[in-house]
Amino acid sequence: MEADSSQLAEATAAYNLEAGEEERDPESNTLQQPLLKRNRTLSSSPLALVGAKVSHIESLDYEINENDLFKHDWRSRSKAQVLQYIFLKWTLAFLVGLLTGLIATLINLAVENIAGYKLLAVVRFIKNERYLTGLVYFTGANFLLTLFAAVLCVCFAPTAAGPGIPEIKAYLNGVDTPNMFGASTLIVKIFGSIGAVAAGLDLGKEGPLVHIGSCIASLLGQGGPDNYRIKWRWLRYFNNDRDRRDIITCGASSGVCAAFRAPVGGVLFSLEEVATWWRSALLWRTFFSTAVVVVILRGFIEICNSGKCGLFGKGGLIMFDVGDVVVTYHVMDAIPITIIGILGGLLGSLYNYLLHKVLVVYNLINQKGRIHKLLLALSVSIFTSVCLYGLPFLAKCQPCDPSVSEICPTTSRSGNFKQFNCPDGYYNDLATLLFTTNDDAVRNIFSSNTPREFQPASLLIFFALYCILGLFTFGIAVPSGLFLPIILMGSAYGRLLGIAMGSYTKIDQGLYAVLGAASLMAGSMRMTVSLCVIFLELTNNLLLLPITMIVLLIAKTVGDSFNPSIYEIILELKGLPFLDANPEPWMRNLTVGELADAKPPVVNLCGVEKVSRIVEALKNTTHNAFPVVDDGVVPPVGLTIGATELHGMILRAHLVKVLKKKWFLPEKRRTEEWEVREKFDWVELAEREGTIEEVAVTRNEMEMHVDLHPLTNTTPYTVVESMSVAKAMVLFRQVGLRHMLIVPKYQAAGNPPVVGILTRQDLRAHNILLAFPHLARSKGREKRH
Amino acid sequence: MEADSSQLAEATAAYNLEAGEEERDPESNTLQQPLLKRNRTLSSSPLALVGAKVSHIESLDYEINENDLFKHDWRSRSKAQVLQYIFLKWTLAFLVGLLTGLIATLINLAVENIAGYKLLAVVRFIKNERYLTGLVYFTGANFLLTLFAAVLCVCFAPTAAGPGIPEIKAYLNGVDTPNMFGASTLIVKIFGSIGAVAAGLDLGKEGPLVHIGSCIASLLGQGGPDNYRIKWRWLRYFNNDRDRRDIITCGASSGVCAAFRAPVGGVLFSLEEVATWWRSALLWRTFFSTAVVVVILRGFIEICNSGKCGLFGKGGLIMFDVGDVVVTYHVMDAIPITIIGILGGLLGSLYNYLLHKVLVVYNLINQKGRIHKLLLALSVSIFTSVCLYGLPFLAKCQPCDPSVSEICPTTSRSGNFKQFNCPDGYYNDLATLLFTTNDDAVRNIFSSNTPREFQPASLLIFFALYCILGLFTFGIAVPSGLFLPIILMGSAYGRLLGIAMGSYTKIDQGLYAVLGAASLMAGSMRMTVSLCVIFLELTNNLLLLPITMIVLLIAKTVGDSFNPSIYEIILELKGLPFLDANPEPWMRNLTVGELADAKPPVVNLCGVEKVSRIVEALKNTTHNAFPVVDDGVVPPVGLTIGATELHGMILRAHLVKVLKKKWFLPEKRRTEEWEVREKFDWVELAEREGTIEEVAVTRNEMEMHVDLHPLTNTTPYTVVESMSVAKAMVLFRQVGLRHMLIVPKYQAAGNPPVVGILTRQDLRAHNILLAFPHLARSKGREKRH
Repeated sequence: MEADSSQLAEATAAYNLEAGEEERDPESNTLQQPLLKRNRTLSSSPLALVGAKVSHIESLDYEINENDLFKHDWRSRSKAQVLQYIFLKWTLAFLVGLLTGLIATLINLAVENIAGYKLLAVVRFIKNERYLTGLVYFTGANFLLTLFAAVLCVCFAPTAAGPGIPEIKAYLNGVDTPNMFGASTLIVKIFGSIGAVAAGLDLGKEGPLVHIGSCIASLLGQGGPDNYRIKWRWLRYFNNDRDRRDIITCGASSGVCAAFRAPVGGVLFSLEEVATWWRSALLWRTFFSTAVVVVILRGFIEICNSGKCGLFGKGGLIMFDVGDVVVTYHVMDAIPITIIGILGGLLGSLYNYLLHKVLVVYNLINQKGRIHKLLLALSVSIFTSVCLYGLPFLAKCQPCDPSVSEICPTTSRSGNFKQFNCPDGYYNDLATLLFTTNDDAVRNIFSSNTPREFQPASLLIFFALYCILGLFTFGIAVPSGLFLPIILMGSAYGRLLGIAMGSYTKIDQGLYAVLGAASLMAGSMRMTVSLCVIFLELTNNLLLLPITMIVLLIAKTVGDSFNPSIYEIILELKGLPFLDANPEPWMRNLTVGELADAKPPVVNLCGVEKVSRIVEALKNTTHNAFPVVDDGVVPPVGLTIGATELHGMILRAHLVKVLKKKWFLPEKRRTEEWEVREKFDWVELAEREGTIEEVAVTRNEMEMHVDLHPLTNTTPYTVVESMSVAKAMVLFRQVGLRHMLIVPKYQAAGNPPVVGILTRQDLRAHNILLAFPHLARSKGREKRH
Repeated sequence: MEADSSQLAEATAAYNLEAGEEERDPESNTLQQPLLKRNRTLSSSPLALVGAKVSHIESLDYEINENDLFKHDWRSRSKAQVLQYIFLKWTLAFLVGLLTGLIATLINLAVENIAGYKLLAVVRFIKNERYLTGLVYFTGANFLLTLFAAVLCVCFAPTAAGPGIPEIKAYLNGVDTPNMFGASTLIVKIFGSIGAVAAGLDLGKEGPLVHIGSCIASLLGQGGPDNYRIKWRWLRYFNNDRDRRDIITCGASSGVCAAFRAPVGGVLFSLEEVATWWRSALLWRTFFSTAVVVVILRGFIEICNSGKCGLFGKGGLIMFDVGDVVVTYHVMDAIPITIIGILGGLLGSLYNYLLHKVLVVYNLINQKGRIHKLLLALSVSIFTSVCLYGLPFLAKCQPCDPSVSEICPTTSRSGNFKQFNCPDGYYNDLATLLFTTNDDAVRNIFSSNTPREFQPASLLIFFALYCILGLFTFGIAVPSGLFLPIILMGSAYGRLLGIAMGSYTKIDQGLYAVLGAASLMAGSMRMTVSLCVIFLELTNNLLLLPITMIVLLIAKTVGDSFNPSIYEIILELKGLPFLDANPEPWMRNLTVGELADAKPPVVNLCGVEKVSRIVEALKNTTHNAFPVVDDGVVPPVGLTIGATELHGMILRAHLVKVLKKKWFLPEKRRTEEWEVREKFDWVELAEREGTIEEVAVTRNEMEMHVDLHPLTNTTPYTVVESMSVAKAMVLFRQVGLRHMLIVPKYQAAGNPPVVGILTRQDLRAHNILLAFPHLARSKGREKRH
């Protein structure tokens, strides 16, 4: 066998040489001619920035590939198999929720304990007035934790850096970012997130948890890590992009739910921000996953309440309970609410703008190599540590208010009135905000019924510091979420505004902080319903709902008039070919026929094709699908001889499989159904492995034929060439396509039945405008919402 | 002028006679031949039951009709006009919220006052032991109120009967039920709802409020009632089905929000249950509408708190506040929760099954005429009144518990411990549930921390009575909602279960009632996330969330294994051609080509067509669209002479407009763009008025020509004939089509460029199975969710 294959390889090498020679003489092969003209005008480079590296990305096949094998499999599915499929779907949704809940528990436990012991040790140094030792210890511990997280990220899974939400959003839109949902990414994300959050960096575990949920979902759906997959029979139905998409949606919802203990908010977050397609059935399944997560988290809290979780206290699971605050508001409160909303919109869009600039610079640094990435992360860590430790010394010590029931001052790891460097009976309000974990900082700044707790100067310092940190921390090579930095910034100016309003308003300052956080979230992330529900579930106060809604609406409106949401900015920056929901207005003035003319001519294959032509087509193009056209078929009644027939579309992956398996026919004939079923089955066709470079074909085999009919997707979606690009794009996105065939509007003998093929890249506004620059000038960027 | 038109009419009559003669000789006209074969196999009758009458229904045009006029208008839209459009869109969303909120306030005020004074009067009779007079008074008042509601419904707007939610659901799916959103429907719905609810019938104002919101939205969107529309220039952009769909979605959300004071629940209800298509932008706009509603309702409550609303008390705006209940639950509580869920699923599906049977019988009665409808409604009213008044006499008087802080016994119109026929110091627990408004009944049965208030026997009577009423009240000819009857039934068995569990569980009995109501809702209506949020907002208790989720999931799962949701059952019963999200599995084994073969051949029109042929096509078919095909066009380079070209598709309404305006050409030629713009504009083409019967064409004009090119939608969505029905249906529904052209897979000279046209009716499983009965046998009804 081995000798055989090496012989084959030699023969192929010889052929390749020959083919290479042929290529030098373009006249000798008519097929080569159009292929060399590729990327003439409508360029569509499938490249994106993945973990600070430029990678080649592919689209996903959400469409069902209805070829003969699939149809046979579909017909032969028994009732029992359908039930297996449904059962497994729900089991997977359950497992996704279960595992996400457990991992969220683990992260919370680890972060609270590591950060807790670190803070307690430093508190001891401060108590003994060994301030410098405290600084060194604090900075050193944070440095090591950051180093741990960054090394993991840089060396083992660069895609684990950042929140991961934009990539999930792109995945659910049909863009497969490489290495996003692997086992190594999952592990690095978990431990990297523990390290980064425990290091006191200005980032949250919320974004990473969403990514973790999606990784778990993806791994479960495919039966394990890439190299050690369980080839379980039941799982075979999940071996397609559609079902993976569904389960990853469940994973993303579970992640949000685990991050905020907000089951409905999690579902809505996926619906509003992450998912591109949505069905009622999916709503229900994601809801089930988040319900499981909530049950797990609740069980964990019950266990921890009995004191078995070390330093894990109330702060562990983020939930800022302001449910006991009596919310009273009147018509006059509309003024501060409007101010908060407008401020949130302005600051949110400003934040998006500045973060974009910082990320561009960071990308340049990160692309220089691993050392640069590490150095960047570590310098941010040192800066953060020094500020968090040093700034509280600027604040004046405040006397404890005896009317407040909470312990004051406190030297434990959490608590609302930190003693820090103050004498007994006094507390340091800035240390309450800075010298603590981020979760506790949020809880403290949200604290209600304590109107005199924070000095305006302290809040200003806090706000300024977190504005700087929020801009410069996000892009470093550790798993980082955006939610918490934004909540911290927003709550600071919210509370400041509350103080400024003074006696004018009766709304509690803690609620001002909540509203400030909500407004900045809406101003930056531009979500409405899901944020509203998340805040509802976070704060456990339904009476806040109407004012939260108004703040969110104002902030989003103001923000939208300046720039797109932060996730869209990151998608753009990474070059992920995200397909927008609304076509640009100028797309109505362009037909797909014109688009196809700007592309190299389409390469058609015959129903029964010569092997050499298939090899050439695969080698000389990067197309992932080819139309299959039958020439000179025996025509149906009423047509003249010489009709051509559009049989369908075949995927590159399937052609490669045919070549690899050498399913060749010595003569030009059509095969019977049993012949193809002997060699292939539907499940293996769903795999997307193998490239043309791995294929070895001998010169004799080159002259043989392949019957492509049984492997051809006979039902590709098509548009007529006179279709406007706007409508074609709506079809492409709504149905979730990877390729769309363009059929001619003319009927005539000798007319090819396919005049072009469109992909995601061809329909992106950016790419079209490069080829048709006059369109951009003719019409601004107005969109019909 | 008048003489002219009468001459024309005569001439046309003469022509028609001739045409009629021709029809007798089928050979003489080749066009007639295929038309007579209509409805041969694939029957698609566009009939539905609307307000107990069978009506002809039409599909909506959600697709943008891209003809030359539209394109010109699109190109010429200035930045200012786009801003006008956006501004108006938000203004309309605001107005929808405002008006829905105000009308909900009006209904609440009216119901509470009418029902309140009625109850107080009867209480006085009972106090004086004039029981029979009380019965007569009570029954009489209810009789008159029902009569008022039923007469309004029967005589002025039969479509106002029932909840209206199924029809809204159908509208948003693309089915235009006639007279659903008119001004008369709106007015009848408002006052009918007041009458029916005040009459103490077992129905809610929730469903009607959803319909009211949609009516308001529709009327605002089209600028007023059909006959008195404001032809405001700004509104012209809303003169299309797409924008009306969006605004009606806002209206439906506002309605739910007004019914339950649940803004997020309202948005989610529209999303999960009502809407077929959804976009993020729409999520935001509906959210804005519901926010406005909440603000209005809040303002109204503040005003009423100062006692200016007559008898309007706490009971007015439905909100069953159980927020003060401390929810503690443990692992062991999973058992009663599971039982409630399973019970809810079983009872919910049983309710759906029985209600279906009752509705079939009721439809037969209602179709017999107005008197029958009235008699049915009135007998239900009398039965209800007698039961509500008489049954409490069966209950034993209970001594008041001095430890409860509420007034006991009470003789006011609301209150938890009604004295009824009991001596002082005692209360009648059944009267607390029955002798009150439905809203108060729910509040009383939800009441927490009163474990000994209700006797099991009383709850059993309550449950049995409301099961009977719930089945027999819904179908009568008054505006009726399903939410409240289901909540009443569900809370009864929930509370019973709570009593049965006794000391086993620590969950409050009031919460059991809430969970019971939630489970029956999920078991019957099969919603999850939206119900969960509605219950969250109704009960104001976030800690209930996890158990509510589990109950809902179990109940829906159990219910789904028996029958579809109640709304789907009603849709089916009414014959509305609702297009399901998931294609049936057997649809993969059928191509659209086969479907087209089972239909009569498609009638193509030429680009420049003779008037007589257009008239014939319109008279002899019921098609609402015709493909426009150019024969023998000068072909593009490389094609032989004699190509045919698919130009697009033209709507019946536009052809009728051409005939009405007599835009005829004496010679066969193509027109210039200015010629058509002189005669037509885009706004009037959006109107759908006029039938072929109103058109009068002289015999001379019959020989003239029409250039159809500028009015043709040049970008219809198409599928190749080899496309499977399953995929075609996905396209049809996802993109929101009314017509879909089938193009041939063959390319040959003389081949027609269009081989068929598909509509909503052709893609409905029911219709296909009638024509292809073998498909039903080949595969069961398994669906891929």
